[in-house]
Formats: sequence, structure tokens, C-alpha cells
Amino acid sequence: MNSPLKNDLYIRALLRQPTERTPLWLMRQAGRYLPEYRRLRGEAGSFMNLCTNPELACEVTLQPLRRFPLDAAILFSDILTIPDAMGLGLYFNEGEGPKFENVIDSVSDVKQLQRPDPATSLAYVMDAIALIRKELNGDVPLIGFSGSPWTLATYMVEGGSSKTFSKIKNMLYSDPQTTHLLLDKLADSVTDYLNAQIESGAQAVQLFDTWGGVLAPDLFREFSLHYLEKIVAGLNQSHAGQRIPVVLFCKGCNAHLEAQAETGCDGLGLDWTITLSEARARVGDRVALQGNLDPAIMLTNPGVIESQVKEALASFGNGTGHVFNLGHGITPEVDPLHVSVLARSVRQFSPHWH
Amino acid sequence: MNSPLKNDLYIRALLRQPTERTPLWLMRQAGRYLPEYRRLRGEAGSFMNLCTNPELACEVTLQPLRRFPLDAAILFSDILTIPDAMGLGLYFNEGEGPKFENVIDSVSDVKQLQRPDPATSLAYVMDAIALIRKELNGDVPLIGFSGSPWTLATYMVEGGSSKTFSKIKNMLYSDPQTTHLLLDKLADSVTDYLNAQIESGAQAVQLFDTWGGVLAPDLFREFSLHYLEKIVAGLNQSHAGQRIPVVLFCKGCNAHLEAQAETGCDGLGLDWTITLSEARARVGDRVALQGNLDPAIMLTNPGVIESQVKEALASFGNGTGHVFNLGHGITPEVDPLHVSVLARSVRQFSPHWH
Repeated sequence: MNSPLKNDLYIRALLRQPTERTPLWLMRQAGRYLPEYRRLRGEAGSFMNLCTNPELACEVTLQPLRRFPLDAAILFSDILTIPDAMGLGLYFNEGEGPKFENVIDSVSDVKQLQRPDPATSLAYVMDAIALIRKELNGDVPLIGFSGSPWTLATYMVEGGSSKTFSKIKNMLYSDPQTTHLLLDKLADSVTDYLNAQIESGAQAVQLFDTWGGVLAPDLFREFSLHYLEKIVAGLNQSHAGQRIPVVLFCKGCNAHLEAQAETGCDGLGLDWTITLSEARARVGDRVALQGNLDPAIMLTNPGVIESQVKEALASFGNGTGHVFNLGHGITPEVDPLHVSVLARSVRQFSPHWH
Repeated sequence: MNSPLKNDLYIRALLRQPTERTPLWLMRQAGRYLPEYRRLRGEAGSFMNLCTNPELACEVTLQPLRRFPLDAAILFSDILTIPDAMGLGLYFNEGEGPKFENVIDSVSDVKQLQRPDPATSLAYVMDAIALIRKELNGDVPLIGFSGSPWTLATYMVEGGSSKTFSKIKNMLYSDPQTTHLLLDKLADSVTDYLNAQIESGAQAVQLFDTWGGVLAPDLFREFSLHYLEKIVAGLNQSHAGQRIPVVLFCKGCNAHLEAQAETGCDGLGLDWTITLSEARARVGDRVALQGNLDPAIMLTNPGVIESQVKEALASFGNGTGHVFNLGHGITPEVDPLHVSVLARSVRQFSPHWH
């Protein structure tokens, strides 16, 4: 039996219930800017060894919380665990993006894809979650996550990162039916996966649609947002008497904010190319907002960080429904002392707005 | 004395004067998808050798016009010629983005930058323009161009392409005054440069703000759009009895379309993440629109290309003010036959809308 939450500010903010201050966590808060992470990453030999070993994944997840007063932990994992569990063979070469040993490039490849059973092929994730919950001992909530179907599909068809997305877009434009079959399988798999994460102890879940922004407007709705909506509808958002909030983070998709808010999710992650005040005006009180400092601000100095925190808090304005975060992951060059400044500034200046 | 224009559809569309059909040109129409370009590029030894030799630049500029019935030629050059003329040493390694031998990383570096005299350090561009105009013999208009001050500044401070723009953003957030000094010098230099291009024979000019979209909204207006407005105000838009239209292409900046339309420019280039109908509704009849097929469509097949052309034409709707183009540069993998299909489709289906 897991302990009840001592700090549930993050959950309450996402459910737009009153909070005393604005909660804070950071995308990639467990990562390369921390010397203790780099040490463990070096010892593990590879990024995937860290992800697939529950003890190591747990340790890395907890590292930033030992340094900074953050209001949530996020599972240390990768957005591409599902295609890996489908047999595509995820790997990372030093200094490069993710790659797959096997790629999807035909209708028969898509037809042969099997929906993974999270209890077996993704057991390492579930074990990590259970272990992290135990170690957290109710201090802060644990966030689970997955890549979105569209984002997973881009990597599976391109074989890795891409600048032009020519293969997946060729499939989408030339053979929309096969593309939908692929996305539908992925949506079912993501739903299973996130429900298993919730069952194992994730207290909120976030869907990362990293590449939705490369699609034309009607195609974003048809090939990405539609499947996010399907996943949200299939999640077990009631677990152990608690409401499990769902957050969508669709990078570069600010044009579709209203449509994102209509998916049934609880919160939207925002990058820094929109002000919190504009986003709030557009989505009203339908969803909470998470974000959105430009990660480059973390490279400047304490004075700039403090003034930018004040500006972001003022931009969101009065009341609950704001989870402070960066607009994208924290970068490896950031001085950890700057994260302390950020955390202190959010704690110092946010109570005024509640 | 240059010949009068035989085909001025592109100019008329940008000035929103009646046209019989929708004119077409393609960003990077002179480029690696053409075997005759790859041959000449191989012989020249480097990309910069092609750019700086007026005869070769002229030949490359004309190559796509010999194959396809395009309605404009665009000077073969690079967006980074100004920083090169300032002494930064532009170079390209095979398969990589642009790089500079010298980077800007201090206030004194910025103060020492000299406004280049286009007649001397950029004479190769002016010679190429004069030669292309002679060879074109009035068939179609010639477009000149430059990178925007913000985009030039990103490369000058980062030393090349960047994913995070950490150096230029650190400068912007920590020392806005020095950043403005740099941008102001660049705006003056771009103005001189484009006026010299017009004097040499460019019949329209386009400003490429490739990286405006990485800025937060207020910062885009302060550090990029402001300088574009300044440049437009400083251009000699009347030359040899003709009006010289100015087009802005700010990639990833659709949130700021109305503000872009207020700069005094004649047309806006659009990427494919907004529909032409939405863009037209937002800017009304203040400016013409250029774009915006997803370049990935060029990799599909004739049927898809034809139907996407029809869709784009219908999205813009009736009347003048549309210059057909892709939403970004054509990619090296495109089959030249697909460009013929595109050109034929625009010619066949666009008269209906005029």
C-alpha cells in the first residue's frame, strides 16, 4: 500500500483546485545537467541500460528531488518504449538521437505489428514505477508518460529522428489507410501502456506529441489529435480513489490549442512561443496550463531567471490551473544552481497569485 | 538597358492586381534535385564557388527555368552573404549546414562589425544579378533576397546552425542592448544590400527570417519583426518606373501573421502549417500570400500532387494575391518529373479562380 501524498499541489493545479502556490517540475529534470546523472549514465554504459534497470531508473528519477524542492517526480524513461516492445529494437549512439534497428516501410510491416502486453515486454517500466513510488514515500506525485501515436509513428517509419519526415509523410499522403492502421494500433498500445503505468502507481500521465507541429492543420487533427482523444477516452482516470490527471504536450501546435483542450485532457503543456495569458484566454477554464519558460533562460543568470519567472507568473495571472515548467526539456549545459534559483523564485513569487 | 517583362504574373499577384492564372515559383528551385545542378556543383568544388562566380550563379539560376514553365527566377546565392562580407568567413562542409570561421561573442566584436559596401565586398552578387537579367531577356522577373537581421545574428553568434540557440539567446536575455546594436547594424547592411540588388536588376526582393519562430512572442516583435519593418521602410521600392514588391518569409511565425502584414511588405510567404484560407481571412487584403504546399508532397506521386494543388487553390479562393509555392525549399530527393506535374496542375486548375 502506497503512502498518501504529502504534497499534492501538482495534482490540485492540474484539476484546477485551489493551491497555496504554483507547483513546479521540469521536463528532463533527471538528466545530463546533473553531475550525479552523468556519473550513473557512464557506469550504466548506455541510456537504455538506465531505462530498463528499475533500480537505476528509480535512482535517476529521484536525483533532482534530492537537490531541488520540486513538486513532482517524472519516471525516467524514453518516449519510444512501445515501438521497442513491438520488436523494433530501440538504441542510442552517443551524441545522436534515437534509432531503430527495424523500420516500418510496408503495409505488411504495419499489419504484423503486435500490441505489446505491458505486463511482460514493458515490465521494467512497471517495476520502476512501483519502486519509485515506494522510495518517494508520498513526498510528491509521480508522473508517467508515453510518446503520442503520431510521434511514435514518425520514428518507426523514418527509423530515427528526421528533419523532413519524408517517409512517414509519403505514407500519410499516398496511403492514408495504412497510416491510420498504424496509428490505431499505436493508440491502443499507448492506452494499455498508460493504464498499466497508472495501475503500477503513476499519479498523473503526460502524452508527448513532439512532432505534431510538422503537419498541416487538417492533417494534425486527423492523424495526431484524433488518436490523442481516443487515448484520453480509454484511460482509467480513477485509481485507488484518486483522479489521475492527463496532460498533453503537443510541441509547435499552438494554432490548435482550443482543439487540444477539447480532447478531454486535464492540462496542456505549452512551449514558449505563446504567452500564458494568451493561452489562458483561448482555452478559458477548460484545462490547466503547464509551462512555459524558454529553456535558454536557464543559461543566463539569476537576475534574468528571477525576472522571467515573475513575468510568467504575471502572464498566467490570478488563481489556480498553472503548473510551472520550461517550454521544453532542460538542456545539458545548464548550471544546477540556476535550477535552485528557478525553484526559489517560483516559491517566493507565486503565492501572491493564489 | 534591360528588356521589359514578358511574363509579369508574379509581380502583379504580389501587388494584388488581376492575373489570368496563379503564378508559380519554388523555394530552392535551383538546387540538388536537378542532375544538371549536381553536375555543376561537383565541378565547382564548393557551394561558395558557385555563389561567388557570377557566370556559374547565373547558369544555376536559369537551370530550372529551362525545364519548367516557372513564373519567376530567384538569384542563386545564400542568405548569409552579409556576415561573410563582414569578414566572418562563411563556409560549407559537405552534408552540413553553414558555418563561420569567426564568431561574434563579445560587445567589442559587435562594435567592430563594419557595414559592408555592396559595390565592393558583394560585387559578385551584383554581377550575377546583372548577368541573369541579361540572360532572362525579360522572360520572367528575377527575385533578389537576404536573410533577416535576426536570422543572420543567430548564425553569427552560434557560429553555424543550432538546435537550442543558446548563445544568441543568452546574449538576447542577458544583454539586450548589445543584441540590438548587432541587429541594427545588420538591418542597415541588409537595406544597403537589397537596394544594391534592386539597382542591379532584382525585380522583387524576399527576406528570409528562418529562425524568428524560436522566439517568445514579445521577443519576436522586438528582436526580429522590428528590424524587418525598418528594412522595408528603407528599400527603394520604385526602380526604373516599376514597383519592386517585398516579401517576408518568417518560418514558424504564423502566430504573428497580422503583425507581419503591418510591416509595409507586399507579400507574406507561408509554411504549410496554416491553411491559405485562414491566412487570407486573418490578413484580409493588406498583403499577397505566397505558398504553401508541404514539400513532402513532392515526394509522393502525380495524383497526390494534383489533388493537393487543387486543394491549395481552393483554399486561397477567388481573385488575385496568391503566388503558388511550397511552404519551404524543395528537397534533394524530389523527382524533377513531379515538378512538371506541379507546374502543369497550377496552370490547368488556377485560371478557374481568376
